Amino acid sequence: MTTQERKAIPVPQVEPRATIPPQNLRVPGPTPVPQEVLDAQAAPMINHRGPEFSAIMKRVTPRLQYFFQTASPVLTYPASGTGAQECAVVNVFSPGDHVVSIIIGNFGTRLAKIAEAYGLNVSRIEFAWGEAADPAVVEARLKELAPYKGVLMTHNETSTGVTNDIQTLAALVRKLSPDALVVVDAVSSLSSLPLEMDPWDLDVVFTGSQKGWMIPPGIMMIAASERAWQAHKTSKLPRFYWDWSSTRKQLETSWQHPTTPPVSLFYALDVALEMMLAEGREAIFARHKKAGEYVRGRVQALGLQLLATDARYASNTVTAIKAPEGIETKALLKKLRESEHIVLADGQDHMKGKMFRIGHLGYFTDSDLEQTLDAVERHLKELGYQG
Amino acid sequence: MTTQERKAIPVPQVEPRATIPPQNLRVPGPTPVPQEVLDAQAAPMINHRGPEFSAIMKRVTPRLQYFFQTASPVLTYPASGTGAQECAVVNVFSPGDHVVSIIIGNFGTRLAKIAEAYGLNVSRIEFAWGEAADPAVVEARLKELAPYKGVLMTHNETSTGVTNDIQTLAALVRKLSPDALVVVDAVSSLSSLPLEMDPWDLDVVFTGSQKGWMIPPGIMMIAASERAWQAHKTSKLPRFYWDWSSTRKQLETSWQHPTTPPVSLFYALDVALEMMLAEGREAIFARHKKAGEYVRGRVQALGLQLLATDARYASNTVTAIKAPEGIETKALLKKLRESEHIVLADGQDHMKGKMFRIGHLGYFTDSDLEQTLDAVERHLKELGYQG
Repeated sequence: MTTQERKAIPVPQVEPRATIPPQNLRVPGPTPVPQEVLDAQAAPMINHRGPEFSAIMKRVTPRLQYFFQTASPVLTYPASGTGAQECAVVNVFSPGDHVVSIIIGNFGTRLAKIAEAYGLNVSRIEFAWGEAADPAVVEARLKELAPYKGVLMTHNETSTGVTNDIQTLAALVRKLSPDALVVVDAVSSLSSLPLEMDPWDLDVVFTGSQKGWMIPPGIMMIAASERAWQAHKTSKLPRFYWDWSSTRKQLETSWQHPTTPPVSLFYALDVALEMMLAEGREAIFARHKKAGEYVRGRVQALGLQLLATDARYASNTVTAIKAPEGIETKALLKKLRESEHIVLADGQDHMKGKMFRIGHLGYFTDSDLEQTLDAVERHLKELGYQG
Repeated sequence: MTTQERKAIPVPQVEPRATIPPQNLRVPGPTPVPQEVLDAQAAPMINHRGPEFSAIMKRVTPRLQYFFQTASPVLTYPASGTGAQECAVVNVFSPGDHVVSIIIGNFGTRLAKIAEAYGLNVSRIEFAWGEAADPAVVEARLKELAPYKGVLMTHNETSTGVTNDIQTLAALVRKLSPDALVVVDAVSSLSSLPLEMDPWDLDVVFTGSQKGWMIPPGIMMIAASERAWQAHKTSKLPRFYWDWSSTRKQLETSWQHPTTPPVSLFYALDVALEMMLAEGREAIFARHKKAGEYVRGRVQALGLQLLATDARYASNTVTAIKAPEGIETKALLKKLRESEHIVLADGQDHMKGKMFRIGHLGYFTDSDLEQTLDAVERHLKELGYQG
């Protein structure tokens, strides 16, 4: 095809924009955003190299450190949670490094796949969907698999509604392999569920803005221990965008970023962190605990089965429920969305269509959850569920 | 340090938030955003896996294709322009591949550095800051450097205010090395300056939301020719987040993304593209051409020197001006910001403090530019500039 023959692209015809009615958005991210935070995004743009933006970072950074419970700098990038997973891997490992992936669902699998995509030698300790990582099993397997440079684990597995006991798992790794890096995916837990990076001696911890932080998607946050920063120095995986050194340097010299940050999302984060501190970290944890208990209580009262096999590890940010015999998840979710504007999430991967998930993290009220469970009950019955 | 000794992090004390006064934001990105677009961001969150979000992508994608002038899918990622540079490199090349970087400033250097960080063998054709790439020089050097897998080039160099003649450079590459990939950084040009991806036979073209698109930073857009998609199939650089295949598949099967997109920024993009089409692509180009001519005219009337050595290649999106003898850029920019709320950009890299830049891309009016140049004139004189 010569240059002359290549066609010009005409103006496309598209469907007009339509107003989206208010929803009870109960997926495990994006989560609802308070009006004050939504409105904060609508402030005019500013120079990301100017003093006004630095002032935002100067407020936001120590507050993120408080929620992470770390004295290490919390770095921020324009990215999704998957970007955070990749950023964690490429900054501390080298090609061929042996790492162990503790997998309890879809996002654990994704983290292992990223490590493999970058040429790491990944050993998997896998648990069935719905189970938490059993520390005894992990301990036995880690002993067989040693030596390893790091252990990748998920704090809260969004695909299964299960929360791992990260404190115990991290302590296990530290006992067996003092120098191994403990890499924790805290995307759907941090700020909602207790996690203490420094006190628990975690090495890399990351999260995403669209989960417990009450802001829209588009920012990921990541922090590294002194041990991880040491590993970073000799890590040979290729990186530029995700490089911690340049990001830390720019933060520490000017409270800025090496590349252009998502300014309007930082306006949102600034306000959201203020609201979160007004509520209080422990109060936020308590609200999520109560929400998890409420949702599980209602689900079980309906005779439905949780995917989580052990109630002690059921997540307080997302509840995963098996679709009852004869009920199609897709039909239930469509009914809820179209007739009630309640939006739930389907299962992922091999569980698509076989389960559904209710998000209860970030910004929500008791009545949001009550309305959701009332509607689930009503529509399941309409679909023929006997309970 | 044992676990017990690790300190808990107390609630930090920070400076309170302050309202930022309205600015005449004249940096080359982030650029001002129309009120209608700012407000669009404040709509409630929706499920990125639901029909409402797919409807947005169904409008946005063909409109992006129109501005790119390509029949190829335009892929979008939560990232800055630097992320787009990295995404371009990792999707089509393999370790050790020889590529040629045509460099006329800071962002060309960055693209070359990214290619090197990923283990490519990079040959540089460098021009002094302020110069455009001379096609005769490029032709001679390309002949010496052959064979090569690709040629990396910048359409509009934001650090120097110079626009390359991409159509001529791309045709040169195509003539000399028909299979080489032409990779074009169009971050600060696309939608503002004429660029026709398919008619000019460009292979990889990318841009960033905070430049000509009239929305905040946080989305990058990238498209690849059929030739680049073929190269993608055999490319061996490691990637997961930036992988085109998964992003294209999710777009083509569901008008969605493989990971969570920045929903509020897509609300903004949806409205901004509508406004851009209402103005018209050619009218937007004409507005930028007129702006470039106006700013250069005023600058030259003041006796100031452009960094661009040849007026034919001076950029119509950003004007870079040498600081006059005895005037400190920093002092001038501070005065303009503090007393007039006019925000200009400093020079980058070795030109920091020796030049300043005026952005005139995306959303601006004649009076924004007039006010800017009037103030520059006044404050330069106050600083002792004789003209």
